[in-house]
Amino acid sequence: MDRQATAFVPGHVTGFFSVHRTEQAVDSGSRGGGITTADGVTVRVTDESDRAITYQAPGAAGAVETDIEPVATVVDELGITAEVTITSSLPMGAGFGISGAASLGTALAGGVVAEESWTERELRELAHVAEVRASTGLGDVVAQAYGGMPLRLDPGAHGDLDGIPGCGRIEYCSFGEYSTKEVLTGDTSTITEAGEDALASVVESPSLDQFFSASRAFAEKTGLLTDRLREVIENVDDAGGQATMAMLGETVVAPGYGLTDAGYDPESTQIDTGGASLCHDDPTDSGNF
Amino acid sequence: MDRQATAFVPGHVTGFFSVHRTEQAVDSGSRGGGITTADGVTVRVTDESDRAITYQAPGAAGAVETDIEPVATVVDELGITAEVTITSSLPMGAGFGISGAASLGTALAGGVVAEESWTERELRELAHVAEVRASTGLGDVVAQAYGGMPLRLDPGAHGDLDGIPGCGRIEYCSFGEYSTKEVLTGDTSTITEAGEDALASVVESPSLDQFFSASRAFAEKTGLLTDRLREVIENVDDAGGQATMAMLGETVVAPGYGLTDAGYDPESTQIDTGGASLCHDDPTDSGNF
Repeated sequence: MDRQATAFVPGHVTGFFSVHRTEQAVDSGSRGGGITTADGVTVRVTDESDRAITYQAPGAAGAVETDIEPVATVVDELGITAEVTITSSLPMGAGFGISGAASLGTALAGGVVAEESWTERELRELAHVAEVRASTGLGDVVAQAYGGMPLRLDPGAHGDLDGIPGCGRIEYCSFGEYSTKEVLTGDTSTITEAGEDALASVVESPSLDQFFSASRAFAEKTGLLTDRLREVIENVDDAGGQATMAMLGETVVAPGYGLTDAGYDPESTQIDTGGASLCHDDPTDSGNF
Repeated sequence: MDRQATAFVPGHVTGFFSVHRTEQAVDSGSRGGGITTADGVTVRVTDESDRAITYQAPGAAGAVETDIEPVATVVDELGITAEVTITSSLPMGAGFGISGAASLGTALAGGVVAEESWTERELRELAHVAEVRASTGLGDVVAQAYGGMPLRLDPGAHGDLDGIPGCGRIEYCSFGEYSTKEVLTGDTSTITEAGEDALASVVESPSLDQFFSASRAFAEKTGLLTDRLREVIENVDDAGGQATMAMLGETVVAPGYGLTDAGYDPESTQIDTGGASLCHDDPTDSGNF
């Protein structure tokens, strides 16, 4: 049988971030805070003689060929020829870090197919470096590897992480796409200043409430908050909830029933509790590679 | 309603370790490698006017009052008065790190009940320091927070971790208890030398196979392997499998169906994929603390 493996990687909604670039992509990235979600991306990698990378969007009838740049880079770096099947339960381009999830999932599952053995740190580094070089993300990969409500205390693939203890329901409404690349390749000094303030306030008072309040302030100060999202967030406030914008997507997220209580018809998920992992498809399979 | 929260912490079977003591308990601990298990410990902490700590063993009809020293220390350090209900699906004293799991679970769930907000790092440090001071464990807490097949590259509460990518079935047979405290408070120089060799070999070749082979060599070199366990392990070898001793318990662990294939009637679990987490009991509860 062809060697194959499947990995699951949670979505990651960034609440606030600061940008840190160095000569080395492995040390470049962002500091910040976010929420990982129990919905995310499943990546199956099968050892095949031809490369094929396909993506199946939530609700789509089937998979289509895709060219997510960091996924192709990870396949190259692993030195494998493989069929990569990416299935997402979250929308692309809406601020859930789908490219990071697809890259990390390809690294974890691809590592099983590769000739050489890799550790989790090495695979995370592969995916992080590919994302940074492609300007598709700066901190999603490390956050998605960690899970929960991660606080990225240092930039880069191997920086220190902490977390806000928490679990529970998260609601979201997505209104369209937002170009991460455009923001990340522009002037990020205002973002970085606001992001550092937000992170300091959440480290000082590590609660879900403070996370949403710091994220909301970040969205306003950076000018990234659109009028449409501001209106939704204010409606959630008026209904007694809390909400913020997913960085970077035209998406509002709220804990608990915040969007429902404000009269919207949101999608819902849970705060992820475990981070990215290899998992086996077939319950009769021992999974011991 | 009284404030309450529940945490799950996986079991942790250490394969090999080295001992590192410093003046500060936070930096003391062990380096080494192990397997965390999907079976583990659930800890519920409820804000009450009197302290009560109970423990329910696997298969027991009910909970009994218990005095796990690091659990009591964590409750003190959090400044809470609480009912702590510890339920384990793994045997105590058999090498699954139950005291570490109980301590970390008490910290995570107790942090929700406490007045002050704590981050995951802070709660992990509380539990690690309490374990090290009580000599009940040196590395279980950080391994259990991480999940999977953790490699503890540095000792202490905040050392670097890496992981062997993997998942799947694990079998075990327990034949009795083993005193962790007696080993950890004795001369550990032989253990440390063998543990460093084992860790280096697994970092060099990070696979499940190498983990079992390095763990097996460690058990022999340190003289910790008992005759009874050696016989079981050799029977698993003869049946084409791999097995090693849980450090520190009179327990043999094997991946896949290793013990079954050798004619034993083992318990089974899975490699844990997510590490310790807060979780909510009641599916209708939003869980957002």
